[in-house]
Amino acid sequence: MVAIENKSPGKDISADDLATKFPLVARKTGRQKSRFTVAGVEFGGDLVPVFAGPNMVENEQLIVTTAKAVKKAGAQFLRGGAFKPLTFPYRSPKYNETREDGLRWLAVAKKEAGIGIITEVMEERFIDKVAEVADILQIGSRNMQNFPFLTACARAGKPLMLKRHFGCSLRDWLGAAEYLLVEGNEKVILCERGVVAPHTHRDSSRFLIDLQVVPAAQEVTHLPVAVDPSHATFWRPWVAPMALASIAAGADAIMIEVHPDPTNAAVDPLQPVDFEAFDDIMRRMDTVARAVGRRILA
Amino acid sequence: MVAIENKSPGKDISADDLATKFPLVARKTGRQKSRFTVAGVEFGGDLVPVFAGPNMVENEQLIVTTAKAVKKAGAQFLRGGAFKPLTFPYRSPKYNETREDGLRWLAVAKKEAGIGIITEVMEERFIDKVAEVADILQIGSRNMQNFPFLTACARAGKPLMLKRHFGCSLRDWLGAAEYLLVEGNEKVILCERGVVAPHTHRDSSRFLIDLQVVPAAQEVTHLPVAVDPSHATFWRPWVAPMALASIAAGADAIMIEVHPDPTNAAVDPLQPVDFEAFDDIMRRMDTVARAVGRRILA
Amino acid sequence: MVAIENKSPGKDISADDLATKFPLVARKTGRQKSRFTVAGVEFGGDLVPVFAGPNMVENEQLIVTTAKAVKKAGAQFLRGGAFKPLTFPYRSPKYNETREDGLRWLAVAKKEAGIGIITEVMEERFIDKVAEVADILQIGSRNMQNFPFLTACARAGKPLMLKRHFGCSLRDWLGAAEYLLVEGNEKVILCERGVVAPHTHRDSSRFLIDLQVVPAAQEVTHLPVAVDPSHATFWRPWVAPMALASIAAGADAIMIEVHPDPTNAAVDPLQPVDFEAFDDIMRRMDTVARAVGRRILA
Amino acid sequence: MVAIENKSPGKDISADDLATKFPLVARKTGRQKSRFTVAGVEFGGDLVPVFAGPNMVENEQLIVTTAKAVKKAGAQFLRGGAFKPLTFPYRSPKYNETREDGLRWLAVAKKEAGIGIITEVMEERFIDKVAEVADILQIGSRNMQNFPFLTACARAGKPLMLKRHFGCSLRDWLGAAEYLLVEGNEKVILCERGVVAPHTHRDSSRFLIDLQVVPAAQEVTHLPVAVDPSHATFWRPWVAPMALASIAAGADAIMIEVHPDPTNAAVDPLQPVDFEAFDDIMRRMDTVARAVGRRILA
Repeated sequence: MVAIENKSPGKDISADDLATKFPLVARKTGRQKSRFTVAGVEFGGDLVPVFAGPNMVENEQLIVTTAKAVKKAGAQFLRGGAFKPLTFPYRSPKYNETREDGLRWLAVAKKEAGIGIITEVMEERFIDKVAEVADILQIGSRNMQNFPFLTACARAGKPLMLKRHFGCSLRDWLGAAEYLLVEGNEKVILCERGVVAPHTHRDSSRFLIDLQVVPAAQEVTHLPVAVDPSHATFWRPWVAPMALASIAAGADAIMIEVHPDPTNAAVDPLQPVDFEAFDDIMRRMDTVARAVGRRILA
Repeated sequence: MVAIENKSPGKDISADDLATKFPLVARKTGRQKSRFTVAGVEFGGDLVPVFAGPNMVENEQLIVTTAKAVKKAGAQFLRGGAFKPLTFPYRSPKYNETREDGLRWLAVAKKEAGIGIITEVMEERFIDKVAEVADILQIGSRNMQNFPFLTACARAGKPLMLKRHFGCSLRDWLGAAEYLLVEGNEKVILCERGVVAPHTHRDSSRFLIDLQVVPAAQEVTHLPVAVDPSHATFWRPWVAPMALASIAAGADAIMIEVHPDPTNAAVDPLQPVDFEAFDDIMRRMDTVARAVGRRILA
Repeated sequence: MVAIENKSPGKDISADDLATKFPLVARKTGRQKSRFTVAGVEFGGDLVPVFAGPNMVENEQLIVTTAKAVKKAGAQFLRGGAFKPLTFPYRSPKYNETREDGLRWLAVAKKEAGIGIITEVMEERFIDKVAEVADILQIGSRNMQNFPFLTACARAGKPLMLKRHFGCSLRDWLGAAEYLLVEGNEKVILCERGVVAPHTHRDSSRFLIDLQVVPAAQEVTHLPVAVDPSHATFWRPWVAPMALASIAAGADAIMIEVHPDPTNAAVDPLQPVDFEAFDDIMRRMDTVARAVGRRILA
Repeated sequence: MVAIENKSPGKDISADDLATKFPLVARKTGRQKSRFTVAGVEFGGDLVPVFAGPNMVENEQLIVTTAKAVKKAGAQFLRGGAFKPLTFPYRSPKYNETREDGLRWLAVAKKEAGIGIITEVMEERFIDKVAEVADILQIGSRNMQNFPFLTACARAGKPLMLKRHFGCSLRDWLGAAEYLLVEGNEKVILCERGVVAPHTHRDSSRFLIDLQVVPAAQEVTHLPVAVDPSHATFWRPWVAPMALASIAAGADAIMIEVHPDPTNAAVDPLQPVDFEAFDDIMRRMDTVARAVGRRILA
């Protein structure tokens, strides 16, 4: 297979791109859509699976409580970071990367709540450990173009969720996904989580949610496209409207940050919603989903 | 009233902005929302009014036919440009700014279809002529910060729709709206129509639709916030998903470009939908609207 | 002449654009460059003319003093706003649009200092009045696509400076310039003044200076390209390095905000430099200019 | 040391950022500037070192010839990629990542031309091999926030050049640099190489060069700030003006892509300059450098 790298790229995804740069990621027919099952939950079908939980696995009790609450509200997967990317090398005592402890607590939550687990893996050397607990390995935004790491993740043989880098185009994103599929791993979910833009409407909102990318991606790829309105907006009051909009735009999965006590969350306390708000969002998302021929709740 | 201009602006809308820069536009209480009636249609309530029609009033037959079709599908207002901003001073014979002819054809369509009219006014000297036909004067994106023109439009005493400039912040936009309200004109609708961004997913899509601005604007202003997914996306297949997403995000009105024969439209043939597609979008928008406690159809 | 508006625009300036959208603005040969004289100063040659002065014509004494100081330092034109665009309809008592008074003071400064005048015109009804005093009419960023106004300015028969809108592409900008040339007005200067971008490095710096546009514009147009590093950066310490960089990049003119008492300037006090700093910048710009085969000082 | 991650970040670099997020990277006094020597060449002083060479180490002859040519023209370091990030997993036969072969050829070029070497390292497992040949390890844009990799590079004990990610802020960049300094590695060079932006003036130019970041970075950090106008512009005719502008803006080092036969370069043939053009740019950069109190040539 022959492909030319970055010559006169433009933004348009060309027929040549589809044929030679990401042929495995590309749709073959107008309506082709990947369907696959993870932990008994089907992706790519009528159901829109939901990943919910805190930014960080702060402690065992918090994560178990949250797992039960989001499961009860209808989420199929618990999200929560044990390994965390940190913009600066120092961290507050509160911001405690829990690593192996966090993984162990996720395993407890998984068992006690009977829920799937999605969590970020940050380094090749931890892939196996994370894969023991996680049903889906999340590849974070900042690793989207860490190409050797993509290959290593794909080879772990677990389902993967590839977050879009906040500075990358759809074309770059599909190129990164091709690195996963080329290794024979076909259970790949894309996830939009906000992009850099001139105006984001609040100083605390570093990104702009890009919902246009949902139909744009679905036009060219068969992979399911998730949206994470919590990280995209960084602002609690906008999470519900943007979650509903994501469903209406055709998102194939949704990730929402949920914390039992949002204002005291160890990280990013401006964005998580509490259990009650999450329960309400789930019901409203279900109503919108049914309006567009999908569903959130059983 | 005292206000400092553009000193350390930031992107956050501060309490000081609300109090001194756009006090009339600012919400007074958490849930305050303007409600007003235009041509018998209420804005700011449960109904989400729809503006539909061609980019350009090409000829009488086209505009009358379209008026009847969009009215039948449930739209309350016919949109269509008689006066058109042109990026370049030359135009194709096809791209024929119809001006007074266009206004006359709009008047015919209004009468024959029994539909409200929204159309752009481009220059102060035409305000009165346009106001004779239009129920709502549309102030285009490029005139958003044409301050003397804003004042002149406001003084015409007609309801106004202020499109957001594609390079302007929410704060700039609300500042422009304040120019309208300060003249005593309270029937003002804001309209998002896409912003410049690093990635828009297609070469032909010059803008990125910003749905985050819907809750962001509603957080600080009582004015209704419309969305125009046709001009925002510039790409027909994305219009329906973005229209549905706009409704789910809480948009208070929707503008959609409709043309009897889209691929032969005199301008921007990549974005309008035909009558059948519009009818389908209306039904689907109504279903989503009802899921969020609003409605499109009676 | 036939041109298609905004169909699959892209960002590339195509041969078709040059031939049909802005043929008068387009370079005919590889090295063709407009040369014209304004108030005895040649544009488009080895000399890089400098426009300097305060943001606002605050009072007669300030403007006369500044005119003499910048003239002495080598500037050929005094800049200063009598008419000012205001983002919000209210202004502080300090921020006093001086209008006719300001024009009268500019006339005094012109006479007393023997310096050319460049000042912004904001509305068609004031063009004649401004043209009585100004040697160059400045069309502000926000009016770049106010097409009827462009035509009116061009017909005034005075040299024009067209500032680039902060959200507009080079292609849009050249289209706006074509509106001026098509009226037979050939003394047109383009001026870059910063664009919206995801990161501008300071909250108070709303724009990012785009120096890439200098060679990009010169590649396709024969018109002189000026840069205004003061409005682009909004931050005094960056004005000198960006002014020097503009010269090195090939800028054909430079606009710098100068105020006798910067921190007490009535508007935007973070960006002007004082007389001493301006004198220093002029000498340093001259040294750089000579290194690239141009000159600032006689 | 305690720091809060990403809470209400804003774009401004605050006193708290300087004190707690990147204290080692932060300037201690107004004029403090790091000075250090790499392969006998001083960084941070009057001399502005130049890195020059092809995008890719295509073969031994090409790299040796280029090394001699750029050395003769005055460059102190040969650049050239043996390991290459690829947006897509397939490559043309022409685009041949040479890896260990490439390193060996760089070693030959170093010896034959007597020139320093800077080359990108892509993975932790190759750091030692690359460090055997390279005088400076280049950390590519896409790895700027690959935090474990940053730590591993810093521990190699070699001088480092950290390219800015095209979607990242100055604050993010300085945070990444702090990961290097906290390991005790003090020979760190920052390098701007273009950012994502709404308009880049050509379809083939994916980035906009950000020269404003040069004074912005120097305002807060003592580290040398390099600029790479070749990768920033992606367009040969803009390389010389942007290189000159970088020098005038105060850049502390310059990286330029040079190829003996640019139009036949294996990668990105639109951006490299040939030997003759490079020689000319070096002389012109020296003239500009001397105008601002620096120098390029001995």
